[in-house]
Amino acid sequence: MPTVTFLPGFRKVVAEPGSTILEAAQKAGLHMNVVCGAQGKCGKCSVYVKSGTFDFDREKYGTFFSAEDLDSGACLACQAYVTDDISVFIPENSIIQEQKILIEALGLETVFNPAVWKYYLELAPPTLDDPSPDLSRLLFGIEKYGGPKEGMIYVPLEVIRRIPKVMRDSGWKITATVTLVPGGYRLIDVEKGNTLDRIYGVAVDLGTTTVVVYLRSLVNGEVLGVASNYNHQISCGEDILSRVNYARKGGLQKLQKLAVDSINTAITSAANVAGIDREDIYEVVVAGNTIMTHILMEIDPAYMIEEPYVPVVRRYLTSAARRVGLEVQEDAGIFIFPAVSDYIGGDIVADILASGMAESEDVSLLIDIGTNFEVVLGNRDWMFSCAGAAGPALEGGEVRFGMRANPGAIEQISLDLVSLTPAYRTINHTRPKGICGSGLIDLLAELLRACIIDRTGRINTQIAHERIRYGTRFPEFVIAWKDDTDIGKDIVITENDIKNLIMSKASVLAACSTLMNQAGISRDEISHIYFSGAFGNYINKENAIIIGLIPEVPGERISTIGNGAIEGANIALLNRKKRKELDEIAKRIAYIELNAEPSFMDEYTKSTFLPHTDLSLFPMVEEMLNECRIRRG
Amino acid sequence: MPTVTFLPGFRKVVAEPGSTILEAAQKAGLHMNVVCGAQGKCGKCSVYVKSGTFDFDREKYGTFFSAEDLDSGACLACQAYVTDDISVFIPENSIIQEQKILIEALGLETVFNPAVWKYYLELAPPTLDDPSPDLSRLLFGIEKYGGPKEGMIYVPLEVIRRIPKVMRDSGWKITATVTLVPGGYRLIDVEKGNTLDRIYGVAVDLGTTTVVVYLRSLVNGEVLGVASNYNHQISCGEDILSRVNYARKGGLQKLQKLAVDSINTAITSAANVAGIDREDIYEVVVAGNTIMTHILMEIDPAYMIEEPYVPVVRRYLTSAARRVGLEVQEDAGIFIFPAVSDYIGGDIVADILASGMAESEDVSLLIDIGTNFEVVLGNRDWMFSCAGAAGPALEGGEVRFGMRANPGAIEQISLDLVSLTPAYRTINHTRPKGICGSGLIDLLAELLRACIIDRTGRINTQIAHERIRYGTRFPEFVIAWKDDTDIGKDIVITENDIKNLIMSKASVLAACSTLMNQAGISRDEISHIYFSGAFGNYINKENAIIIGLIPEVPGERISTIGNGAIEGANIALLNRKKRKELDEIAKRIAYIELNAEPSFMDEYTKSTFLPHTDLSLFPMVEEMLNECRIRRG
Repeated sequence: MPTVTFLPGFRKVVAEPGSTILEAAQKAGLHMNVVCGAQGKCGKCSVYVKSGTFDFDREKYGTFFSAEDLDSGACLACQAYVTDDISVFIPENSIIQEQKILIEALGLETVFNPAVWKYYLELAPPTLDDPSPDLSRLLFGIEKYGGPKEGMIYVPLEVIRRIPKVMRDSGWKITATVTLVPGGYRLIDVEKGNTLDRIYGVAVDLGTTTVVVYLRSLVNGEVLGVASNYNHQISCGEDILSRVNYARKGGLQKLQKLAVDSINTAITSAANVAGIDREDIYEVVVAGNTIMTHILMEIDPAYMIEEPYVPVVRRYLTSAARRVGLEVQEDAGIFIFPAVSDYIGGDIVADILASGMAESEDVSLLIDIGTNFEVVLGNRDWMFSCAGAAGPALEGGEVRFGMRANPGAIEQISLDLVSLTPAYRTINHTRPKGICGSGLIDLLAELLRACIIDRTGRINTQIAHERIRYGTRFPEFVIAWKDDTDIGKDIVITENDIKNLIMSKASVLAACSTLMNQAGISRDEISHIYFSGAFGNYINKENAIIIGLIPEVPGERISTIGNGAIEGANIALLNRKKRKELDEIAKRIAYIELNAEPSFMDEYTKSTFLPHTDLSLFPMVEEMLNECRIRRG
Repeated sequence: MPTVTFLPGFRKVVAEPGSTILEAAQKAGLHMNVVCGAQGKCGKCSVYVKSGTFDFDREKYGTFFSAEDLDSGACLACQAYVTDDISVFIPENSIIQEQKILIEALGLETVFNPAVWKYYLELAPPTLDDPSPDLSRLLFGIEKYGGPKEGMIYVPLEVIRRIPKVMRDSGWKITATVTLVPGGYRLIDVEKGNTLDRIYGVAVDLGTTTVVVYLRSLVNGEVLGVASNYNHQISCGEDILSRVNYARKGGLQKLQKLAVDSINTAITSAANVAGIDREDIYEVVVAGNTIMTHILMEIDPAYMIEEPYVPVVRRYLTSAARRVGLEVQEDAGIFIFPAVSDYIGGDIVADILASGMAESEDVSLLIDIGTNFEVVLGNRDWMFSCAGAAGPALEGGEVRFGMRANPGAIEQISLDLVSLTPAYRTINHTRPKGICGSGLIDLLAELLRACIIDRTGRINTQIAHERIRYGTRFPEFVIAWKDDTDIGKDIVITENDIKNLIMSKASVLAACSTLMNQAGISRDEISHIYFSGAFGNYINKENAIIIGLIPEVPGERISTIGNGAIEGANIALLNRKKRKELDEIAKRIAYIELNAEPSFMDEYTKSTFLPHTDLSLFPMVEEMLNECRIRRG
């Protein structure tokens, strides 16, 4: 069988003849960009075959490359088939890099009341006068030590089988682990001697892009290790739709395995950091969007992306973690957050839990922005939610020099209003390679403030300045000159990029407005705006209001809850009572289908201005714009 | 590797060098007698090696054979090691034959209220207006069709995974199967279309020797198939102690597999008879003695045979039938009867259920006789139980021409009181090969009645009759002359055989008396004596009283409940309410350890007379003996 050697790392794998270079790369553990789900559409998996022959349809898929590139072996890894021993160079851009991930210590407080705990029992050995069975001895011991009544505890066969040896080998001094199950308790482990201090739990945020894991002691709740990882599924498609399409083509099991691998890898590194044995992890709590949790549980997600858009399951799920493939204690449980709908998943329910908005009398607005966005408005009595596609612009896609929040991305930027010279900060403080979402929001606000663009996003090419110029097709503004960058090209933002950004932000604002209309709530009545997710954490709140990404409220009312999914998962791990509330919260939230809501399109159109057609909704911005206009003259 | 060919069937297997002929026979599917548990002690696994060389210690294990036999290849299969290609002849006596098994139609009535049932649901397909998740749609459907509330039903992951496809493939017409679990319900299956009529359950009597299976419709309780099978574990030792010893030597998993194979084989043949698919069997209920059920569940039985004689588990067990290895529906449950102690197992609890004695005000005595015997005395308010070793005599062991209830066994016998000529009936009406338990009881009573033996069991050699003679070591009575038998030898009963029989029956009677003493109950107060088990079914009640196997009560108070274990298992299969009572019954029964009870030895000594030292306890027998004495003069 042919071999494929990947450069520059010289990883070598044997490939099935007729398999793609992409599949060979996955086999080699190299995770490539496949934004379109390996359909040959996005061009992000470009590679160069340096030696050997291969099959690639240049007519059909060659449009991404120059003739020169094609002659030097350029092809799309997802459309190039291995026929022979080859060596393949993968450019840096085609490999998924570790992203900046928000991992913050929880500032939240919650009651410590976990769903799994231990009893250390010193039992009397059996005698002829007291020959009661091993299991009764153990269960009565638990009762005597203050635990649940004997008849309330279910004991799985696998545990019963271990009991006699553990009891005798330990001289009748054992530790029993008990967990809550519907209708009672379950004995999930028996160990020799006193192991009261060895009981851990894991909270997981299973994101489309990244996986974050918190490892905690379930004796005192202490955080013992935190680890993150990109979601290995990325090699099967970057966005969630590509993943579902991959699953539809028979890839569900593979996606499931990749999700589990991603979590296992993160658990292993957290456990290594903490110096604990994974066998002592007795519970795993997972928050993720509806499609991610369906895939993790190997439940077909296909029906969520076709009319009438139906998930298989919405309520919370419990099962054995091992049955899903997680490498933790044999009988450890897994708890999956419930969802509201296909678009409002367990990650958003976790956000709500972390924000505390479901317990407050005040009305809050929760916004989680990624390629898709989710918005929840409400308080302890009522809640509305909606979701939509923001498009990739706010994450750096569909923007010429847009990029993810990787090293070299401009993440903050301001313009000197006189000289129009940008001042920026890049991730890892390297020379810039591009600009990521938070940088783009800053830039849009600054361009507006400097009157370089008008409220429709058009660049004022009347301004005579070397940074304002015509590019190949559109007017553009130069952010960084070629010699100052890491890529040997001027980094610019074009009028077309700005148009895409406005379309994205308009979707978010229109969604907020639609929910506010639905609830009859004005912007003054919103007591809190919570940003959840990595995106929200890095953006400049004022600039988000200036461009009209969110409704205008006083700045002090805006806060970020960081990675709300992992925070919510942590809360549910530590406090079993909160879990019972989750299904209630999820059921209480009304889901508004934006496409079915006539007012949404109106709101969207009004929102395609910076910040909005109606400036009276953005008084602070109106004032600022007036000042700018006066200053510019 | 060497091959072993077994004659007369010419079954050929490859054997590991150094393995025994017994192991090779097991590999070939030939189940040999191994009464001693393959320790070379019983001589029941004799074979003849017809060609090829092998290792066998003639000094140590040759005592079972004549020099001539040894020269023609005789050896013990359990002690002969394969070194070379050999052919081995297995005599008929060394092979376990199908035994006569009691399978009777249940005369009992019980409420039909099974623990698993189905709903046929015609659901509305999802629309944009009603996009509720598949699982909610299904669970609300069940609720609408009169089933339990949505929140009360746990749905295992494996079932959730199947739901979306089954719903869509069937046009939203599905059948859901629900079972009771602690604290609620469990959805164990979803199928396309209406399968309401395809739901079956199996009741199993897992005996040390035999396995009996009833296959029933769970729509109406009808019996659809019955099958029986010997317990394949017999090839690892005939009695229960040998099995535990086999388990202790690392054989637990093998014994577990053999037990499961035995049940699976019986289920398959019952399913074939009924013409149903095993995949439609949704529940299995098993009654068996404590050691058998421990082994079936792969729970170490070792601690039950050493001081202080402790089982691992006594209460009822539930698990997934598939996890145990049973080939039934994927998520079908298994229910194992609870036990009272190591000696009073789930089979006896099933007997009690079948007898109805735990619900009656009247005092009943339940007796189950095999190699071991169990006795229960009591009513709905109190119960005492005990168990002991009867020795093999009552089952035909330790008796020169004793045999199991196989074809050719004399099962009934009477003597002409004048001519002393026996009239007997053999199983299958063939020429006699030996005499089984029920025949031996008849014979003992008849010999006593004919004054051929006295109340101590001594043969009156003063009687001049050709059938009464001195054998090689003991006086004996000739039951059948050589030419009338199938074995070419006179079939006799010796004074030593009679001594062994009296010791066996004395144990049973002493056990009954001990419980009666304990409860302060006289024989007049016993309203019912129930015989359970195959043994009880074939014995002559009057003769059982005459020899003093059981206390004397009027004949109409004695009945047999047949195979109480399978009857009890059937009741629990059909009526879930009865299951809840089982743990209560099992807990209520006090277990009397006979060895720790000083009065037991007294009672035993008194019982080594026919029927007892104190004839006033057996007035009917006393009268009969007087008549006989007068007649004989």
